[in-house]
Amino acid sequence: MGWERTARELLHRGPFLALYRDSVLRPDGIAGTYEHVVVEDGVRVVALDDDGQVVLVEDDFYLQERRVLHLPGGGVGGQDPHAAAVRELEEETGLVAGETRPLGVIDPLSATTVARTHLFLATDLRPGHTQRDATEIGMTVQRWKLDDAIDAVRSGRISEAGTVAALLLAEHARA
Amino acid sequence: MGWERTARELLHRGPFLALYRDSVLRPDGIAGTYEHVVVEDGVRVVALDDDGQVVLVEDDFYLQERRVLHLPGGGVGGQDPHAAAVRELEEETGLVAGETRPLGVIDPLSATTVARTHLFLATDLRPGHTQRDATEIGMTVQRWKLDDAIDAVRSGRISEAGTVAALLLAEHARA
Repeated sequence: MGWERTARELLHRGPFLALYRDSVLRPDGIAGTYEHVVVEDGVRVVALDDDGQVVLVEDDFYLQERRVLHLPGGGVGGQDPHAAAVRELEEETGLVAGETRPLGVIDPLSATTVARTHLFLATDLRPGHTQRDATEIGMTVQRWKLDDAIDAVRSGRISEAGTVAALLLAEHARA
Repeated sequence: MGWERTARELLHRGPFLALYRDSVLRPDGIAGTYEHVVVEDGVRVVALDDDGQVVLVEDDFYLQERRVLHLPGGGVGGQDPHAAAVRELEEETGLVAGETRPLGVIDPLSATTVARTHLFLATDLRPGHTQRDATEIGMTVQRWKLDDAIDAVRSGRISEAGTVAALLLAEHARA
C-alpha cells in the first residue's frame, strides 16, 4: 500500500455519521491529511415474486428534494447485512422472503467513506408486516417487470447506486 | 415533498468535503436535524478500444487499504462532467477519446450526499499524455475483455460503484 496513516482525529460525531481527519503519508511520501466520513453499511434487496416481477418502493429523499424510486433497503442498523436485508424488505414492503442470497457488494463512494452497500436477491415471497419509520410515511410499493426496471435504469429514471447495481446483477443472475 | 428545511449550519469545511447540519421538518411533521456531506461530483469512463477491450486502472485506495481495480475517472474538478471524463481518461491512461457519450448517472450515497457520479462510454481512442497526480503514483493501466470485466463485477473483484454501474450499462449499450 502506498498510503500510510500516522494519526486520526475525530472532527464531529453526529447521530448518523462521524467525520475524521487522518494524518497520512501519501504515495509520493509527502505528509498530508485525508478527511473521511463513517456511516453505516447499507443493503438493497431485489425481491422477485413468482411472476418474475420486482418490488420497488418510492419515497421522498431529503437531499435529492424529490421522490426516489428504489429497491427496498436501508442501513444495516447494527445487524449483519443478510439479516438487515430481510428486515428492511419486510418493514418497507410487508413481504417476508423464504429465500435470500447475496448478489454482490459495492463501494458506493470509496474516496469518502469505507461504507459498503450489500446487495441481495430475495424470492419465495410471503405476506408479513409493514413497519415504516417516521421518514418513510409517504412510501409506496410498486411491482415492476424486471425488464421494465432495467429500462428505467438505462433511461436514468432509477439512479440510486445500490438499486442500479442490484437490478443489473439480478438480470445477470436470471440469465 | 414530505421534508422541509428550516435552517442550514456549516459544521466543517475541509479541502475536499464540507459537513452541514440542516434543521428539518420530517415527513411526519416532527422537527429534527439532518447531517450531510458535500463533495464534488465524480466521473467514470468505459473506454473501449477497437478490439472491444475496456481500459481499467488499478491503484492504492487509502480508505479501503488495498489496491482497487476501477475505471478511469475521478472528481469533476470544477468542469462539466463530460470534459472531466475526457480529462481524467487522458491523465490516468494517456488515451484521448475521439468520441464520448453519456451512459448514465448514479446517486452513489443518496442519504449522505447529493453528489452524483456521471458515467461515459469513450471510443475512437488515440495516444495522448498521461499526467497522474501525487496520489496516483502506483497506478497501472490494464486492458480487459469487456466480458471478463463483467465477470469480475459479478465475482466481486470489481466493486467501486461507478465502475460496476458503468460496465454493466456499457454491456447493455453494446447489445
